[in-house]
Amino acid sequence: MSRYWSDVVHALTPYTPGEQVQMPGLIKLNTNENPYPPSPLAIAAMQAAAGEQLRKYSDPSNAVLKDTLAAHFGLRREQVFVGNSSDEVLAHTFHALLKHELPLLSPDISYSFYPTYCSLYGIRNVQVPLNAQFEIDIADYQQPCGAIIIANPNAPTGIALPLAQIEALLQAHPDQVVVIDEAYVDFGGESAAALVGRYENLLVVQTLSKSRSLAGLRVGFALGHADLIAGLERVKNSFNCYPLGQVAQAGAVAALQDVAYTRQTSEAIIASRAWLTQQMQALGFEVLPSKANFIFARHPSHDAATLAAGLRERAILVRHFKQARIDQFLRISIGTDEECAQLVAALQALL
Amino acid sequence: MSRYWSDVVHALTPYTPGEQVQMPGLIKLNTNENPYPPSPLAIAAMQAAAGEQLRKYSDPSNAVLKDTLAAHFGLRREQVFVGNSSDEVLAHTFHALLKHELPLLSPDISYSFYPTYCSLYGIRNVQVPLNAQFEIDIADYQQPCGAIIIANPNAPTGIALPLAQIEALLQAHPDQVVVIDEAYVDFGGESAAALVGRYENLLVVQTLSKSRSLAGLRVGFALGHADLIAGLERVKNSFNCYPLGQVAQAGAVAALQDVAYTRQTSEAIIASRAWLTQQMQALGFEVLPSKANFIFARHPSHDAATLAAGLRERAILVRHFKQARIDQFLRISIGTDEECAQLVAALQALL
Repeated sequence: MSRYWSDVVHALTPYTPGEQVQMPGLIKLNTNENPYPPSPLAIAAMQAAAGEQLRKYSDPSNAVLKDTLAAHFGLRREQVFVGNSSDEVLAHTFHALLKHELPLLSPDISYSFYPTYCSLYGIRNVQVPLNAQFEIDIADYQQPCGAIIIANPNAPTGIALPLAQIEALLQAHPDQVVVIDEAYVDFGGESAAALVGRYENLLVVQTLSKSRSLAGLRVGFALGHADLIAGLERVKNSFNCYPLGQVAQAGAVAALQDVAYTRQTSEAIIASRAWLTQQMQALGFEVLPSKANFIFARHPSHDAATLAAGLRERAILVRHFKQARIDQFLRISIGTDEECAQLVAALQALL
Repeated sequence: MSRYWSDVVHALTPYTPGEQVQMPGLIKLNTNENPYPPSPLAIAAMQAAAGEQLRKYSDPSNAVLKDTLAAHFGLRREQVFVGNSSDEVLAHTFHALLKHELPLLSPDISYSFYPTYCSLYGIRNVQVPLNAQFEIDIADYQQPCGAIIIANPNAPTGIALPLAQIEALLQAHPDQVVVIDEAYVDFGGESAAALVGRYENLLVVQTLSKSRSLAGLRVGFALGHADLIAGLERVKNSFNCYPLGQVAQAGAVAALQDVAYTRQTSEAIIASRAWLTQQMQALGFEVLPSKANFIFARHPSHDAATLAAGLRERAILVRHFKQARIDQFLRISIGTDEECAQLVAALQALL
């Protein structure tokens, strides 16, 4: 508390990120990091960029990175926005596109940063409950609203909506922006990027932190109609003209170009997820059907917080949310096969 | 224009950064970049950081970087804030600390991003004219206000206020936050960082883009009372918990620790500035007394825009602002001695 703060600061409840604990031998399954390293091509590009030319500003238009993304998704540069992580892209999106007289609709259980952005920018938010199976039912969004944001696959449930449902949502709300946050889409979901050319109310947000294994670099992007991107650019250029440094731009371009590596590592994670899901079910856990690089699971007779604490004593970190409806679930990132096996062994010992 | 935009977007006039032109043989004196490379220690640290560990998130608390800054300035970690460039730090500062019922005071001629931030966050801004010598006169700030921001040295004039005047300003406004933006302070100015322990209304903002020659990395910071920093942290953690990636944190720490290199390169720039000022005066230019890594100069009988265009034809870029009172000035970044000599030769040819 300080009399020097602007009014908005007093009301903020900041997002709490998963812990970044440093501990030897730690198995870190709490922040949905990729267990495999970034593409060797990305590492080489970043090494080359980390040199004397850093004395100069980076390209504020991010032309090479935008063109790489445009080519990747079959779009034009004007349909691409980039930022310092998808969190920054989302922040600008809330500010530029989601603040209207009518409320923003979002799921009651989703990325917990959404209500935080609403507080930051004074956006009225109506949270639409997931159904009893923890799914998004798009029929529940058929109500007056200023805009809609959903995560697909949703977090922390991991459950994905098929593309046909996303398209139905876009058609049902032609006068509202619909943001599809696809941080986890490369692990089995269907991307709405394919719909960008056909729906002027669609914005798709993705990150390089998950399938490209670059959480520590901080690059995210959005795809949408050129008018939506122009709105984002106005806010971005009123905030920070150079959000991405040279190393970030170079690493992102190379990572996006190494399509084969992304596919290979993503498929390995999908295979590990199937194995872990089966093992957890054998231990009596209910595991929601995940299309993400994590699973969301609860045990009918063991308290989630107690399990998380027991795992922590065995140097395994998982994420537990103290939130209504989901406080008996654990969110567990998919690690390497060895890490998954160690998790299963630890759970066997705890149950 | 789009019906999907939030209201705020329509009214924004984004900041226009200096051009990042790629041209062989170009002498780029338009964006106040350092003509010398970053510290070799910083480059080594960034190379080491650009590796497999980027799969993990960076430390969201920026503990090592904050402790490095705290040690450098004789402060505690709680008195330090860091961000993705000083532009991001300034944006959060405007949002968290400068939005009040009474207007924000800033100089009429200063960093042109300030009014842009005011538009972005709906802050009322009263611009206080510089005096006839283009100086900030702190007596002019003795009026009702919610907060004050000044750049010291000011940009684009380059003129610095002595520390005693900053202290007088702080004492005259105990109930208002006073932000001193010190992007250029290491080229001969007096930093208010020394006053942070004594004035709870003081926030000092600096960047690693200028004296540390890391414009392409994007790191800035603020120093102030722990309560001011706590307000900034609340906004930062409601916007993007991880604004600095691992490479940025590692490079910034190493650059800050290489004090000798920063001193040596800054002194070289100061010496070049003295030589260039003398040469320009010999050509008939009026040169404002600069404590920055640029000079601000006008010729009594040659139009500034015409001169800038003529220099551009000779592959030399300088910055010209189409703004009342200063539209006959050129802002010229201090390059290497060879670049300064080429500029002087080109001006001789043009005059």
